[in-house]
Amino acid sequence: MPSSPRIVPRYLTELETPVPIVDLDRMAQNLDTMAAYAAVHGLALRPHVKTHKATRIAAEQLRLGARGLTCATLHEMEVMSEVTDDLLLAHPPVGDPKIGHLLTMPGNVRLSVALDAPAALLPLGLLARDHGREVRVFVEVDVGMRRVGVQNADEAVALAERIVEFPTLTFGGLLFYPGHIRETPDMQGPALRRLEQDIGAIINALDDAGLRPPVVSGGSTPAGFRMHEVAGITEIRPGTYVYNDRTTAEIGACAWEDCALTVLATVVSTAVPGQAVIDAGSKALGREPLPAGAELGFGALLDRPEVTVMRMSEEHGVLDLGRTSWRPAVGERVRVVPNHVCMVVHSNDVIFGMRDDVVETSWPVAARGRGYERLTLAGVR
Amino acid sequence: MPSSPRIVPRYLTELETPVPIVDLDRMAQNLDTMAAYAAVHGLALRPHVKTHKATRIAAEQLRLGARGLTCATLHEMEVMSEVTDDLLLAHPPVGDPKIGHLLTMPGNVRLSVALDAPAALLPLGLLARDHGREVRVFVEVDVGMRRVGVQNADEAVALAERIVEFPTLTFGGLLFYPGHIRETPDMQGPALRRLEQDIGAIINALDDAGLRPPVVSGGSTPAGFRMHEVAGITEIRPGTYVYNDRTTAEIGACAWEDCALTVLATVVSTAVPGQAVIDAGSKALGREPLPAGAELGFGALLDRPEVTVMRMSEEHGVLDLGRTSWRPAVGERVRVVPNHVCMVVHSNDVIFGMRDDVVETSWPVAARGRGYERLTLAGVR
Repeated sequence: MPSSPRIVPRYLTELETPVPIVDLDRMAQNLDTMAAYAAVHGLALRPHVKTHKATRIAAEQLRLGARGLTCATLHEMEVMSEVTDDLLLAHPPVGDPKIGHLLTMPGNVRLSVALDAPAALLPLGLLARDHGREVRVFVEVDVGMRRVGVQNADEAVALAERIVEFPTLTFGGLLFYPGHIRETPDMQGPALRRLEQDIGAIINALDDAGLRPPVVSGGSTPAGFRMHEVAGITEIRPGTYVYNDRTTAEIGACAWEDCALTVLATVVSTAVPGQAVIDAGSKALGREPLPAGAELGFGALLDRPEVTVMRMSEEHGVLDLGRTSWRPAVGERVRVVPNHVCMVVHSNDVIFGMRDDVVETSWPVAARGRGYERLTLAGVR
Repeated sequence: MPSSPRIVPRYLTELETPVPIVDLDRMAQNLDTMAAYAAVHGLALRPHVKTHKATRIAAEQLRLGARGLTCATLHEMEVMSEVTDDLLLAHPPVGDPKIGHLLTMPGNVRLSVALDAPAALLPLGLLARDHGREVRVFVEVDVGMRRVGVQNADEAVALAERIVEFPTLTFGGLLFYPGHIRETPDMQGPALRRLEQDIGAIINALDDAGLRPPVVSGGSTPAGFRMHEVAGITEIRPGTYVYNDRTTAEIGACAWEDCALTVLATVVSTAVPGQAVIDAGSKALGREPLPAGAELGFGALLDRPEVTVMRMSEEHGVLDLGRTSWRPAVGERVRVVPNHVCMVVHSNDVIFGMRDDVVETSWPVAARGRGYERLTLAGVR
């Protein structure tokens, strides 16, 4: 590849766009707030790294008291094994390639997984025995999201009984993701009461079977600051809180001023009347609707939340100027708060950290992708 | 990072999922078909690399007769300068960082860009003069997509007249993207006639001004095989045709059997009745609706197109089993045809090429991302 000038940008104006930038003060505040919440309520904090995929931020979460880390992919686990020896895969490890990858994580790492079926447990149990590797297994419970998870207390008990049959597996407890609880905070009460009842029934059934769950692990950023109200929960796994986004702000889980990551973009065309086009499209912002619907656009300007990204191509975003008198010129720069920040991070290899207009630092999104480069055929380009 | 076993997979069953795999025979057929179409009709073929972002495929497109390559990002240009000396940026190059990056491409590369406004032209013209670098500038025309582009012949002539005022800029011609022409082939006729009229009027006006466009560059995969019917067009820039996807098949621009890239995924849960959950979610498939609407899901199984991915989390995809008697077991593998293949490639670093059940090769998605690693601060991790 031809060599490019390695001019490290010092000011935001020197950054090529579109580019994800993080307000370092806001991020630090977000990290502190969640750490303090967990500490005050005696909840173990096991942040989900899917949002940032960066060892540097994970290390900071651990420094602030996190018990360990939660991952969604094997590559996230492999990368995060650099900074912690306590990793939970909150995704069913199914298929020999994936289980094999799991069992070759560094030997100092305590491995935990979550699953919901004997058919997922059996191959894991056999391979763990073959590898002589201990794995802590959580029973994943469906508490209303209708995605994965056992459906009732009987299934939970049956699965826990199967787990402890394997010599190298231990029963970790219960795990659930309350992703369906996305109402505004003052509407979450009934959902949280229902959650407490459902979880309580399963805990009691396990207790009766002599399998009291050592850990009960819940979510999430949207409902994160309410988990202490649900009796029985011992651990939380929020992810998005590190950056927050338009969705968490929209549902009241954070303030607009808590959105730490924005996509810096440039107005590249105003040729079509009534709109302005920026260089951030679906490949920079993701195409994630707000819970209230896609007609609310795919992002909004940090300084002008009434201006939204209404249409996108892969590398074009169309700003709706219908609710503003602002008329940007070609070349003007804007900062877009994305609807779902995890998807923005997922497509970027580096994030820039800034204060005011100064680029202070940058970090690699080290756990981005799948890590399949290690499997590529030698000599092929 | 801890070392992983470098077992190069030989069979699909050995690949960790989710993973993008390409049927090499289908891809070769797709490449041949478009090359033959362009050759038969005397159209210059300048494939858009946004779909594959891979030098190996670009080199094959060039070997099959492509005149040069089209890019959407500066990073794509930089990577593709390895395999061609003729690159078009089909995105307005606005902002000094971007223009500076453009002008430092290897000196052997003929640089072309497209833009629609004097405000975009002026900084480019000045910086190109400062660099002593020749740039060919196309006037981008809005032919109905309402995204970017001059709105009429007067604007096109005025912009072309400005281009030739700069000593190191040349007038490349007209460029448009007919992304709005996505009807099925038998419904495209009226749109193509309208396109011919609009383009013809602009060509005539430029001719009258002594600025006959040397090149008239059009799209696209959806309307790609109809461009020869539009008088005046000399060049086409299709991208998606190399892989095709559920959208191109749905609108009739290819057959289902022409879809070359699928996402291999594993069923990880069947705990919730009436559905099966795979390990390919929005981070593997993108969240791109079909033109007919998001209620048609975000992908469909290659071998069972009636089974669609109806809901997704970041790493979970929920298969709707409502139109099939098939009931997959946990551990079963499926191949998902994504709605929009460009977004799948955009989030992967490596693609595996297969024939039957054998993994024959793999290649890096070398132009993925933004290339901002070169701008990162030394020593920061």
